[in-house]
Amino acid sequence: MVLKAIFFDIDDTLYDSSKLTAMARMNSIKAMIDSGLPEKDENKVYKILEGIIAKFGPNYGKHYDELLRELGLKWDPKIIAAGVVAYEHTKVGYLKPFPGVIPTLLELKKNYKIGVISNGLAVKQWEKLIGLGIHHFMDIVVTSEEVGVEKPDKKIFEHAINELGLLPTECVMVGDRLDTDIAGGKGVGMYTVRIKKGKRAAEKSGIENLPDYETSDFSELPGILEKIE
Amino acid sequence: MVLKAIFFDIDDTLYDSSKLTAMARMNSIKAMIDSGLPEKDENKVYKILEGIIAKFGPNYGKHYDELLRELGLKWDPKIIAAGVVAYEHTKVGYLKPFPGVIPTLLELKKNYKIGVISNGLAVKQWEKLIGLGIHHFMDIVVTSEEVGVEKPDKKIFEHAINELGLLPTECVMVGDRLDTDIAGGKGVGMYTVRIKKGKRAAEKSGIENLPDYETSDFSELPGILEKIE
Repeated sequence: MVLKAIFFDIDDTLYDSSKLTAMARMNSIKAMIDSGLPEKDENKVYKILEGIIAKFGPNYGKHYDELLRELGLKWDPKIIAAGVVAYEHTKVGYLKPFPGVIPTLLELKKNYKIGVISNGLAVKQWEKLIGLGIHHFMDIVVTSEEVGVEKPDKKIFEHAINELGLLPTECVMVGDRLDTDIAGGKGVGMYTVRIKKGKRAAEKSGIENLPDYETSDFSELPGILEKIE
Repeated sequence: MVLKAIFFDIDDTLYDSSKLTAMARMNSIKAMIDSGLPEKDENKVYKILEGIIAKFGPNYGKHYDELLRELGLKWDPKIIAAGVVAYEHTKVGYLKPFPGVIPTLLELKKNYKIGVISNGLAVKQWEKLIGLGIHHFMDIVVTSEEVGVEKPDKKIFEHAINELGLLPTECVMVGDRLDTDIAGGKGVGMYTVRIKKGKRAAEKSGIENLPDYETSDFSELPGILEKIE
């Protein structure tokens, strides 16, 4: 065996983050309308909310406060709470791994170390792994919060590889994003596998972010690793 | 009809807050142990966690960070996230009204305005009402965050009564706490009904906090209000 460790991105690689986020946002808007939000056009509110999240970042705690402000309404804790509860309930109910993820991880676990390299807050990313029921599979989880730089920065990949005492050529980076997972993994000399899932599934790769392999079916991963071996 | 409005406390009055909190904390501790917390004595950890919540307040966002510190352990996002997820899942799954609450509110709604007077953060208290499925019953919700003082301060009761344009003698305060709900309601001249539920069910009342009526069964409320009428 040449390979020793397989690293994964989380969002849109291990679960359908794009769909879950879209569902949770739309459910939060429906609940806010049900609790008295005077603007009843769901799609209009969705666009404004998307803009707020883009502007303030996904971990800002006051998206719905800002939404009321942008709609010219006064602060209303009932409407805000309705949005929060609907978002949380959607997350708890629908956070499930992509088909094939758990059997594949079980299979890979026999021969490889399993890790995560993720941009985001450490506790938030662990919450996702726990909600997905795959936290016990992980030999190592590296987040940008802890390392201080984000993918595609070389340092975050090197940190993960060094923690396991390996060489880049003994590692594979698996992810959906060409600009972060694939470009970053290639940049330090890891093998790369692109998962064509989520909102970026149709993106075209250039020279600097051309993955070694790509698939839209997680279950094909063991076969791909055999080819690399 | 003499009475016009019935005001309720939330925690341990409309739902079993004491039991839910205890269950959620214990589930969070079990999950943290499952995710590698080296201290395996659940009851010992529970006591430390209780102390932290008493010291920092229930709305402090870093209880589990503090728990690791008090146990002399280094910060561990996996353990913290395990606690957070178990706490949230317990809350989503077990937040239900006491037996009799919804049929009783439906009954009362025919003749009275229904309100809440609650110590706490407005969004958090609305989240509870929404999770309980009773937010649409409420004609008015008054929180200490919005008024700037907590029960038993007269101002929070007067604020609620004035918002509905009523006299204190047209209102009833229903709650589990003698020191806040009953003493406060009496203090402004409202009728008071004590709900003997939760961890304070066995407390004895003195002269200043003697309720007009008390019951451990929410369904008895319409009969009690008839007696007041």
